Amino acid sequence: MTTYTPPLKDIQFVIHDVLKVTESGIPGYEELSPDFTQAVLDEAGKIAANVLHPLNKTGDEQGCVLENGVVRTPEGFKAAYDQVREGGWTGLDCNPAFGGQGLPHLMNTATGEMFSAANMAFQMYVGLSHGAASALHAHGTEEQKATYLPKLYSGEWSGTMNLTEPQCGTDLGLIRTKAEPQPDGSYRITGQKIWISAGEHDLTDNIIHLVLAKIPGGPEGVKGISLFVVPKFLVKEDGGLGERNRLSCGGLEQKMGIHANATCVMDYDGATGWLVGEAHKGMRAMFTMMNEARLSVALQGFSQGEVAYQNALGFARERLQGRDVTGMKNPDGPADPIIVHPDVRRNLLDQKTLVEGSRALAYWGAELIDRGRLAGDEDAEAMISLLIPVMKGFLTDKGFETTVLAQQTLGGSGFTKQWGLEQFVRDARIAMVYEGTNGIQSLDLVGRKLGSNGGQTMMAFFEIVKSFIRENEGSETLKSDFLDPLKEALKDLQAAVMYFMAEGMKNPLNALSGSYDFMHLFGHVAVGFMWARMAKASLDALEDGASDRDFYETKLATGRYYMARQLPATRLHLARITSGAEPVMALEAANF
Amino acid sequence: MTTYTPPLKDIQFVIHDVLKVTESGIPGYEELSPDFTQAVLDEAGKIAANVLHPLNKTGDEQGCVLENGVVRTPEGFKAAYDQVREGGWTGLDCNPAFGGQGLPHLMNTATGEMFSAANMAFQMYVGLSHGAASALHAHGTEEQKATYLPKLYSGEWSGTMNLTEPQCGTDLGLIRTKAEPQPDGSYRITGQKIWISAGEHDLTDNIIHLVLAKIPGGPEGVKGISLFVVPKFLVKEDGGLGERNRLSCGGLEQKMGIHANATCVMDYDGATGWLVGEAHKGMRAMFTMMNEARLSVALQGFSQGEVAYQNALGFARERLQGRDVTGMKNPDGPADPIIVHPDVRRNLLDQKTLVEGSRALAYWGAELIDRGRLAGDEDAEAMISLLIPVMKGFLTDKGFETTVLAQQTLGGSGFTKQWGLEQFVRDARIAMVYEGTNGIQSLDLVGRKLGSNGGQTMMAFFEIVKSFIRENEGSETLKSDFLDPLKEALKDLQAAVMYFMAEGMKNPLNALSGSYDFMHLFGHVAVGFMWARMAKASLDALEDGASDRDFYETKLATGRYYMARQLPATRLHLARITSGAEPVMALEAANF
Repeated sequence: MTTYTPPLKDIQFVIHDVLKVTESGIPGYEELSPDFTQAVLDEAGKIAANVLHPLNKTGDEQGCVLENGVVRTPEGFKAAYDQVREGGWTGLDCNPAFGGQGLPHLMNTATGEMFSAANMAFQMYVGLSHGAASALHAHGTEEQKATYLPKLYSGEWSGTMNLTEPQCGTDLGLIRTKAEPQPDGSYRITGQKIWISAGEHDLTDNIIHLVLAKIPGGPEGVKGISLFVVPKFLVKEDGGLGERNRLSCGGLEQKMGIHANATCVMDYDGATGWLVGEAHKGMRAMFTMMNEARLSVALQGFSQGEVAYQNALGFARERLQGRDVTGMKNPDGPADPIIVHPDVRRNLLDQKTLVEGSRALAYWGAELIDRGRLAGDEDAEAMISLLIPVMKGFLTDKGFETTVLAQQTLGGSGFTKQWGLEQFVRDARIAMVYEGTNGIQSLDLVGRKLGSNGGQTMMAFFEIVKSFIRENEGSETLKSDFLDPLKEALKDLQAAVMYFMAEGMKNPLNALSGSYDFMHLFGHVAVGFMWARMAKASLDALEDGASDRDFYETKLATGRYYMARQLPATRLHLARITSGAEPVMALEAANF
Repeated sequence: MTTYTPPLKDIQFVIHDVLKVTESGIPGYEELSPDFTQAVLDEAGKIAANVLHPLNKTGDEQGCVLENGVVRTPEGFKAAYDQVREGGWTGLDCNPAFGGQGLPHLMNTATGEMFSAANMAFQMYVGLSHGAASALHAHGTEEQKATYLPKLYSGEWSGTMNLTEPQCGTDLGLIRTKAEPQPDGSYRITGQKIWISAGEHDLTDNIIHLVLAKIPGGPEGVKGISLFVVPKFLVKEDGGLGERNRLSCGGLEQKMGIHANATCVMDYDGATGWLVGEAHKGMRAMFTMMNEARLSVALQGFSQGEVAYQNALGFARERLQGRDVTGMKNPDGPADPIIVHPDVRRNLLDQKTLVEGSRALAYWGAELIDRGRLAGDEDAEAMISLLIPVMKGFLTDKGFETTVLAQQTLGGSGFTKQWGLEQFVRDARIAMVYEGTNGIQSLDLVGRKLGSNGGQTMMAFFEIVKSFIRENEGSETLKSDFLDPLKEALKDLQAAVMYFMAEGMKNPLNALSGSYDFMHLFGHVAVGFMWARMAKASLDALEDGASDRDFYETKLATGRYYMARQLPATRLHLARITSGAEPVMALEAANF
């Protein structure tokens, strides 16, 4: 019952009007002309709407089935996967030396948004392979890269990340899986991993597992963790498939959502693996690709919000209940469409402003990743490292919230499986959990990122926003509706940082007790900043005589809603933060 | 995997320390001694924990099945229902003249909370019968009451409410089901109703449907709606079951949650029914019991929050990950329990303060209903009418939020079916929708209740809170930690009312655009007020030398968290309200 329309115009707006990619000076971006990106996005949008979205509901209903060690994905998934693979989408932003398409990460972000919106469970198969390939590209030997990358980029093989074990998720120092060195330089991997997305399935000929394990005798805790590549089928010298490795899928997790993605228990029973990167430096190897992986989860958050919003909007325009209090809008019908009612609009505008603001923020994140990678800009790398926990935590929390709001637009219909909104809620929920729970994101932000470089990157963020405000205060519209609220919100963020500096120094619990609220406060400022940039871009386009005035005026009106109704949340988060550790730590554990 | 422990001590605290029921002067309350209520709650708690909760997960998994017009409830439901029925719980607060137990509604609220927490889908069968019985009691003829009430109170028969049709949910003026008068005084009911909870099932011998329909020739819209009683089996003069009525279950809705409750399409195919109350006054008859029905949904909200919190807390005490930054707490184990971490505590305390505050507010609501009904206090009736949309809307929104927070406490485990938290999320979600969506609650509040009695009831609420503050400002602890924050929050509520008066007068859209935020602003003030009352009660108990000092000190510490970290949300809601209609109404429907 649900539909998905690729938001091509909104995506092009962010890429060209807001980020102005061709003027950015990032190597490779000069090719991203509006016509070129439109052509790429058009094709990806067609696959998302026509191939992936029609499988979203049936995928949820059928789920994955494990029989005799083999996982069967839902009907149509294999054919859809082949289409995605043959279109070159699995290697879009990958190194051409190994068969990738060589486009910037920004383009993969835009296509990834659409694929995720259309069918999140499906896109996870593609996304996880991409992550595994990135880790191998960054840390693998030349031989490993030559062996695995071409097949991973082409999508003939897929990849996974194996971190979690029953006794450890967040605290990876507790890992028990062991890797015993063999005389031939390989390792024997033994242990059990859980919650391995796409750990086993029928979409590809081989599955390349990246596995965290401990080499006996190494250091305790996280400092003794190494990363291994462990293929399902060993690869022969000629690149063909050899014998089956000693690993198997021991069970599938029954979950609230993303039923079409196989969440596997993986048993390694003396499997053959090879060290990736240095021994005992596995965590570092994992962290290399953390920014990309977490940004892709942030995408999942708002992309589920986008598709949910589209369907809520369709319902609100069609469903006839009650009359507009200011005079009926549909006099020939039995009632007016519910979109006339202020509270329905409030609900829809909360959705719309969160989704569009999130997109702009995420794409800025992708641009920063590209600027770091392609232009070697270390400041951009530092900035994206600071922003990543904000993007992952805030955008997935708000993405889930958006799906719940959209479900509410439909009233009782939203609760039924028939209308399909409830699936978006169930699927979006996981994004708040994996790739580090959002609580962990907030600790990463406050405990690690905020103070890194002596706090310089945080100061640089303030300066970016402040200089944008300074440069544009001449415009009355921008000033009153966008820049003044942004300035207030920025003050709240600065006050929170000051509080952490002063009080967190005295007692770290004062900072840690406010970490989650800080992540949200930062998120609102960042999205508010993006709305100000979108407003500026829209005003510029209108001044330049853009033909589609409605589009840009709508952007301005939508942005005004965010600034007036969402951004004031910064004050609440600041109040929570500055109440400090006392209320949080007062109770003994036994008295909860 | 989930457990449920009846929160007897917390419930007794609200009933006796906070509401001080035996001193209240409400007829019937003099019998509610602590020993008596403890005995009742003990028994209800045992059923909740030992009979109903063990069926919660299997009920979700099996759901209801429709075969040849008959609905089969999940395994064990019939036996559990019989146990509830035989214990007299179905008629606990009902009129003894028809076989009810005659206890105050407050006691039904307390037992209802536990039954709902333990198994929401199960308790709906009981709750809907109660609602139907209440409508018949208020509006039925003596003959109708004698025919139906004893069997409904005893639970031998059950009842339903039939309002919604495919083309109308909120806007009941669009109802098409017709009721044609017959020479014998009965009516022939023809039409289709949807989303009829417990419309068909195997728990009782008969099902008494209350159906809204239009008598041909009556007034247009809601003024032409009448209420009918339409039993599944006609009742013979001797009270025995006669022939099958011409009505049937045409299908079961597939839903996100409450799988064990049958949500039916009901087809009335010339069924025989009898008018309840006056012709064309069906809406009024329905509204009579609205307060009770909506309060019971509010209960569902926080009761799912309660059981979710209990399970999140259990996990947080057991799960070992990471170390306390202030020094390890579990040196002999591989890691500390996660409850040591500030952000886990933040999460748990948001849950705990919402649940306990919601309970106090809901029980105050039940007391007001009793005060209106048993003491004939019209001010109490006006107050509960004002508060009901706040309780229904705020407590179900926050109840759902609590289940999501609890699910997050478990990280990845929270997303799995095995741990069971995700069911609480799915079940709690519906409470935001039925008995009038929460958007509709907010319109009822702002559009109808706020201005009724010329606004006197709202002023009376302000006065209740203000005089509580005045009377207790002498206590320094109360003043700084509870009364001062409450005063600030109350000012925000008053400012919102002033805004509606001034700006809503000029343009009703200014009030309607802020209705949802007003409901939440009011909810926070009301729950904040209850926390202040709980703090006062706890201080009193400590001064009186209560033996369980830990309990009361924990209440104080918990309340401080609410006042410091939840209550400041009032300012955000006020900011959203006073931004007015402009941001909400700016966009044309076509430009969303």
